[in-house]
Amino acid sequence: MTIEMKSIGTIHTPYTIKWNMPYQPVTDDIGEFSIELEESFTDGLNKIETFTYIYLLYHIDRVTRPVSMSVTPPWAPQGTEAGLFATRSPVRPNPIGLSVVRLLKRENNILYTSGLDVLDGTPLLDIKPYLADLDSKADANHGWAGDLPNNDHLLLHIKGIPHDE
Amino acid sequence: MTIEMKSIGTIHTPYTIKWNMPYQPVTDDIGEFSIELEESFTDGLNKIETFTYIYLLYHIDRVTRPVSMSVTPPWAPQGTEAGLFATRSPVRPNPIGLSVVRLLKRENNILYTSGLDVLDGTPLLDIKPYLADLDSKADANHGWAGDLPNNDHLLLHIKGIPHDE
Repeated sequence: MTIEMKSIGTIHTPYTIKWNMPYQPVTDDIGEFSIELEESFTDGLNKIETFTYIYLLYHIDRVTRPVSMSVTPPWAPQGTEAGLFATRSPVRPNPIGLSVVRLLKRENNILYTSGLDVLDGTPLLDIKPYLADLDSKADANHGWAGDLPNNDHLLLHIKGIPHDE
Repeated sequence: MTIEMKSIGTIHTPYTIKWNMPYQPVTDDIGEFSIELEESFTDGLNKIETFTYIYLLYHIDRVTRPVSMSVTPPWAPQGTEAGLFATRSPVRPNPIGLSVVRLLKRENNILYTSGLDVLDGTPLLDIKPYLADLDSKADANHGWAGDLPNNDHLLLHIKGIPHDE
């Protein structure tokens, strides 16, 4: 059975080149990253500005590689493999991307957010509030990625923090 | 443009009655809540058991109410209104549900998890690892819900913790 979804807006980022997306910036300059919701949904943003963080769900629309159940993330040591569902690889059976972003400012149907590693023009599927008690887990870990040698360095890659190699 | 998704598995819970789902249990009894991934995707679960928490994305498939941009959550005081995207209402333009659950145990293509307030038989769309540094936000808040009078009590509802009224 096919489930039908539709774009409800557009994500704007500085990234336009496929396969060559820079790491997420740690700067929070207002304007670099924004979410433009379709105007007919603007009233659905009422009170969203009271949240520190929001979830964005989006359609990963420019992936052409075939889905594989075994993944080696680009930042992991050669030979490292994990199951697709144990990674955040963009090549998935259902191309839904998920990011937690800081909400910086709202202007009508536009939300300005902290950095996002998605391509400019990515179709938006949903916005949900990030609720501290439901979504923030102080005892969360990094799974297999936390067990790799040199994992402090690898975590910079996972988090997208620019650093000298 | 329509985006096509498909079910990749099934979520099993004790909840079969529409509109009358009990609050999430706080018990973590193994077996009450499970995710049955289609067997063809089993290799995609390799190493997922190393994660404390995972995200589940699922198709909210039994909502029949029309989408409204203004929502009054069932636990909020009468007259409280918030925009749809400032709530976790299941009635959304794209019916994608999102939950963070604790991963208790894996048996081949079955994952046993902590409690989930979804109906039995809910179609699974994706499983993603919850990564501490990306997803856990110590400075997250509860937005407008945190500003309501008597919010300690309301947070029990938001979290789904059973309690005496």
